[in-house]
Amino acid sequence: MTAIPSEGRLAQALKATGEAVNAELEILLPVGSGPEHRVHDAMRYASLDGGKRLRPFLVLQSAALFNVAEAAALRVACAVEMVHCYSLIHDDLPCMDDDDLRRGRPTCHRQFDEATALLAGDALLTRAFEVLAADPTHPDPAVRCPLVWELAHASGGQGMVGGQMVDLRAAEFTMDVPAITRLQQMKTGRLIGFSCEAGAVLAKAAPNLRQALKNYSHDLGLAFQIADDLLDVEGDAAQVGKAVGKDADAGKATFVSLLGVERARAQANMLADQACAHLDPFGEKADLLRATARFVVERRA
Amino acid sequence: MTAIPSEGRLAQALKATGEAVNAELEILLPVGSGPEHRVHDAMRYASLDGGKRLRPFLVLQSAALFNVAEAAALRVACAVEMVHCYSLIHDDLPCMDDDDLRRGRPTCHRQFDEATALLAGDALLTRAFEVLAADPTHPDPAVRCPLVWELAHASGGQGMVGGQMVDLRAAEFTMDVPAITRLQQMKTGRLIGFSCEAGAVLAKAAPNLRQALKNYSHDLGLAFQIADDLLDVEGDAAQVGKAVGKDADAGKATFVSLLGVERARAQANMLADQACAHLDPFGEKADLLRATARFVVERRA
Repeated sequence: MTAIPSEGRLAQALKATGEAVNAELEILLPVGSGPEHRVHDAMRYASLDGGKRLRPFLVLQSAALFNVAEAAALRVACAVEMVHCYSLIHDDLPCMDDDDLRRGRPTCHRQFDEATALLAGDALLTRAFEVLAADPTHPDPAVRCPLVWELAHASGGQGMVGGQMVDLRAAEFTMDVPAITRLQQMKTGRLIGFSCEAGAVLAKAAPNLRQALKNYSHDLGLAFQIADDLLDVEGDAAQVGKAVGKDADAGKATFVSLLGVERARAQANMLADQACAHLDPFGEKADLLRATARFVVERRA
Repeated sequence: MTAIPSEGRLAQALKATGEAVNAELEILLPVGSGPEHRVHDAMRYASLDGGKRLRPFLVLQSAALFNVAEAAALRVACAVEMVHCYSLIHDDLPCMDDDDLRRGRPTCHRQFDEATALLAGDALLTRAFEVLAADPTHPDPAVRCPLVWELAHASGGQGMVGGQMVDLRAAEFTMDVPAITRLQQMKTGRLIGFSCEAGAVLAKAAPNLRQALKNYSHDLGLAFQIADDLLDVEGDAAQVGKAVGKDADAGKATFVSLLGVERARAQANMLADQACAHLDPFGEKADLLRATARFVVERRA
């Protein structure tokens, strides 16, 4: 039994990842020339300096388990983050969630305009695959191709985009726990899964080690979502005069509305434990990934 | 000097391509299950049974020059067409061109809704890379990776999406002939270029042969665009009571507004001749590509 690193060590590692990802994105998303620079500005606006960088962190940590060169892992981390940021840009558009704020700043279409935001999302998604397919990501194209395929599979109509479609239509269906679980697996789980497995792909790791990371990511992703639902209720409940959050206001079924706060919290904790157990084959090398599972269910924002 | 095939032979070949592309897209874009099938329906709606399939035709013809297996070329052809169709879906959205009709049918967001159309475009783009990266596209990942990279590079912020951004901002700049040429090269030229070079990539052809196809595509793409501008003027002029087309109405600079009809037509014909000349190294194997250059400047729709 290994000791789980302190919150401080995880916070430090997350901060370092954030800085490394920013520096790499600065290089991978150059300021454009010509009138098209506006779309490049929007791509940079929506992806630099923001977010927890959870997905890149998972890529870097899973790569570190196998001693993958950090420069290579960082490119994969940035590609995943580009896909995540594109999905946020498109999600925020008026025809989707119509959000004005993201990470405390105006959303991309508020800062620029809808057409520019649409194109910036398209270009970020495209750039992610361009980065993965390029030589510096890995000397062996037999590694780069699976990375492209896996990221596309996780992000497309069978994965993240499919999950967004289901989410938009949730009111039309009876969303019980299995249905919500499936929705979240598609909408957020698959990209988290890609991030956790990326290190194994980069290292051409043995199938059982890759499977261990897949299992970890499955439980981590679900724990993450339940914690999100809890925050939606409890974050707001802590505020004066507002007992429930936006999901409940919207009449959306969530893990919390279906299970209740107590059972949802117990479930999230159980999943975090289970996620950690899947990492046994990696010994203490995986301590930061274990701490991540704890962090995900204990975070306050 | 080889005889250029009759219009009839080209029409027949285009028709055969259309049928083959449809059949392959039927396989590559399956009807979905679960509530997410709506986005799959929209992807199919926007890409099956439509358009001239010019880009797939160019892929198949360039592949035929090198005797590439048709099954492989067809997958690449479908990937390019998915990118083309995604760009049309997003272009038609209210925040872009706000079009109600496409290929004589309601646009995707009219038939479904804006959110579904947005997601269908995203998923088509993603699927294109998934298809290219998969084994059946080519047994050698050292071929599949360049295909992914080249398609991404042609489609993204430095290519098609960048060109769309420039187009949206055209009114802010002085659009002279070099500026319009650059815009069109980005917006439509790069994807046509990818299509023409794809055969050489699939066949690992000698650099000079790939360069010949690149040169052909450059002139073809520009001729295509000038012909489009001419149709916008002359197509409408043939209609009662409407002397100029939508570009002129919108005050947009085009090759025709800058050069006049006569010089524009002469330029298009010159480019078509030049395009054909680049195909000399391929002898009569390239006759259908020569006929395509003729077709592009002589078409009436």
